[in-house]
Amino acid sequence: MKQLNIQLLMTGDELMTGDIVDSNSSMIAQYLKDLGLEISRKVTIPDNLNILNEEIKSLATNADILIINGGLGPTVDDLTAEALALATGKPLEQHLHALNHLKQWCIKRDTALNEPNLKQTFLPKGCDIIANEKGSAVGFKVNFQNCTIYCTPGVPHELKTMLTQEILPKIAKRAPEGISLNVTRLQLFGLGESSIQKLIDDQLPDWPKEIELGFRAGLPLLEVKLTTKTSKGVELKHIYLPRLYNLLGDHILGEVNKRPKSLAEYVVDLLVKNSQKLTLAESCTGGMIASLLTQISGVSNVFEAGFVTYSNDIKTKILDVNEKTLIKHGAVSNQTVLAMAEGALKKASADIVIAVSGVAGPEGGTKEKPVGSVWIAWGSHGKIQSQYLKIPASRLYFQNYVAAIGLDLIRRLLIRSTEVPNYIIERGME
Amino acid sequence: MKQLNIQLLMTGDELMTGDIVDSNSSMIAQYLKDLGLEISRKVTIPDNLNILNEEIKSLATNADILIINGGLGPTVDDLTAEALALATGKPLEQHLHALNHLKQWCIKRDTALNEPNLKQTFLPKGCDIIANEKGSAVGFKVNFQNCTIYCTPGVPHELKTMLTQEILPKIAKRAPEGISLNVTRLQLFGLGESSIQKLIDDQLPDWPKEIELGFRAGLPLLEVKLTTKTSKGVELKHIYLPRLYNLLGDHILGEVNKRPKSLAEYVVDLLVKNSQKLTLAESCTGGMIASLLTQISGVSNVFEAGFVTYSNDIKTKILDVNEKTLIKHGAVSNQTVLAMAEGALKKASADIVIAVSGVAGPEGGTKEKPVGSVWIAWGSHGKIQSQYLKIPASRLYFQNYVAAIGLDLIRRLLIRSTEVPNYIIERGME
Repeated sequence: MKQLNIQLLMTGDELMTGDIVDSNSSMIAQYLKDLGLEISRKVTIPDNLNILNEEIKSLATNADILIINGGLGPTVDDLTAEALALATGKPLEQHLHALNHLKQWCIKRDTALNEPNLKQTFLPKGCDIIANEKGSAVGFKVNFQNCTIYCTPGVPHELKTMLTQEILPKIAKRAPEGISLNVTRLQLFGLGESSIQKLIDDQLPDWPKEIELGFRAGLPLLEVKLTTKTSKGVELKHIYLPRLYNLLGDHILGEVNKRPKSLAEYVVDLLVKNSQKLTLAESCTGGMIASLLTQISGVSNVFEAGFVTYSNDIKTKILDVNEKTLIKHGAVSNQTVLAMAEGALKKASADIVIAVSGVAGPEGGTKEKPVGSVWIAWGSHGKIQSQYLKIPASRLYFQNYVAAIGLDLIRRLLIRSTEVPNYIIERGME
Repeated sequence: MKQLNIQLLMTGDELMTGDIVDSNSSMIAQYLKDLGLEISRKVTIPDNLNILNEEIKSLATNADILIINGGLGPTVDDLTAEALALATGKPLEQHLHALNHLKQWCIKRDTALNEPNLKQTFLPKGCDIIANEKGSAVGFKVNFQNCTIYCTPGVPHELKTMLTQEILPKIAKRAPEGISLNVTRLQLFGLGESSIQKLIDDQLPDWPKEIELGFRAGLPLLEVKLTTKTSKGVELKHIYLPRLYNLLGDHILGEVNKRPKSLAEYVVDLLVKNSQKLTLAESCTGGMIASLLTQISGVSNVFEAGFVTYSNDIKTKILDVNEKTLIKHGAVSNQTVLAMAEGALKKASADIVIAVSGVAGPEGGTKEKPVGSVWIAWGSHGKIQSQYLKIPASRLYFQNYVAAIGLDLIRRLLIRSTEVPNYIIERGME
């Protein structure tokens, strides 16, 4: 069976001027990829009836499936239905199904149906209406020559719902072999794509071709996707997934179920599970770790206090770091982060702590403590570990990476990991 | 003179799979817009020689200028030069200029020139080389039929440099009337696009059509762009820009010179100018204000300490908030934020403070203090003001908006503004 030829037509002046970046087409592509399908061509044009008309005719000649995005709204620059009527020779007529949807929509929102909205009910004769759970404009499907044309809304969350609930199931039926994909997604921190690929090549050289490996960076995490399309692949996955777990160890945070989690979410979930309270003493990350944690709802059960101690004076005054320690060893030192950690634990009456002190740059580096140097301390009362790392990078990247490492070290502590993480192996030499 | 027909051809498998979102085409469009030019069509295709060849021939037939992006690298899937050779009938040959660039590039990086890199020196016969200051691959220009084809690198910062330094000056010469645009960009906080449009319609109804107004959201800030293409427009701008300043008042943070600044940057610049030290007492923003400030290099001169005090106990223990105040008025109250502000000022020996306490949600709301309620206090010793705001929104949006308002209130304090900002007028009722 030949591969389906799927093409996209993205419409909208705002896409042409660059005022918005087109993320819808990436969304469509990613969903199709999950079905084992690819987009062969994507054309983006402004809101212009003649250009739309010509482009639709031209694309429909080559494609099996054409997905048009945008131009379903109520205003004069929403031209998709009109262009399709022109291109396919199917005149616009009012669709009762669309009218009912719109009426229900207005009732739900407690608003009156207005004239511009009514425009959204006039669609090419004989087209199939596609439900839109999230917005006022329905989608629709037109068969033209040998091409199935789906018209979809430009608002991302409307598009997403319409794709997953209505359109993809239809397209899936036409995918070769009636593919049913078996997908496992792992979230990792601390190992890059090329390192993982090398580990697999070296340690699991017989990795079966039935299990396709995919990588997706979602900084600071990495998503590794294992996809198989055959029953043999599913069987093999029972063998190779545990081997992969073994190989990547505690760099794996977990499997994605409904949605990916953030590193801070993993930490908060573990703290809640263990009924332990975390506190922070941040110098170079300047509150970023606290901010990442407090973006998680429910964090107040496990986090009461964080200290952003930027100057030496404040480290002494707020966290009881001995002045002599600061003078003798400097703010970026093992002795200072250990004292910061102890001070924060005491002041916040917490169970666990992260303390960080480093040179974020671009100013402030010295020969002994160049930009990118950082000391991290973490642990509980009497059991505080510390580590030096060197991360030469831009200020913001440095802060983000140090914050992520701090959270990951706490995660490893909470799962009682005894492994040495890759970032310490690679960056932990002084 | 007719409008130039400019089309884009974006190439790369990673664009088709949705693994990356195409921001390059937006960048190109925005730069062209500054020249008064528009893109009429954009086509995106995978790395496939035949498809590239056909598409280049087809696009070059209609366009005056075709910009091709991507496919200039050293690997087998980089096919732009080869496809252009095929499409235009100009065979690949080694260009000395490209070879010299590559050699210099390797010397600068202290690396050896390798075989795959040499591929980047074979380009269509007779093409013009375009310098690439930032990367190993040069760009090139080919004239084909009546179309000028520019081939550009996919790496964003290489593209940016090549566009601004090499390609745009060439295209500008072909723009109608040799347009020289006069552009002023203002950065604002606290007024939305529609509010500004309404203010202008109401208060400056004679706004001249020679000055085009554009808006660009860069949350939490808004950029307002005034563009004029004629000398009459420039004259009128001398009159209308001051009127606009008058109308929008201290919602204007400043004019963009080389690059937009963040709200935190404006605050840090003002603190440095005034030699004043800021401290923070954050409850519902959980360290976000501290993190935004400490992302700015040089902040250590004006920021020494921030307190993330999430629980009542910690507010008392660390910031000396009276237990009775917390019991009587609650954590989200005028009395508590005022006490937090005073406590932080004292503990940090700072000149100025922001304190925030609110209900970020989605849990924790009550009838008196629903989700989205927040109290903010700001000022200096003995001169602390406070304000209630209601911002019903998602947790992350709430935190971002409250953090931005906190920074803006400090900015207004530092410029001695006596205006009431729009967000207090709109959201300041209890």
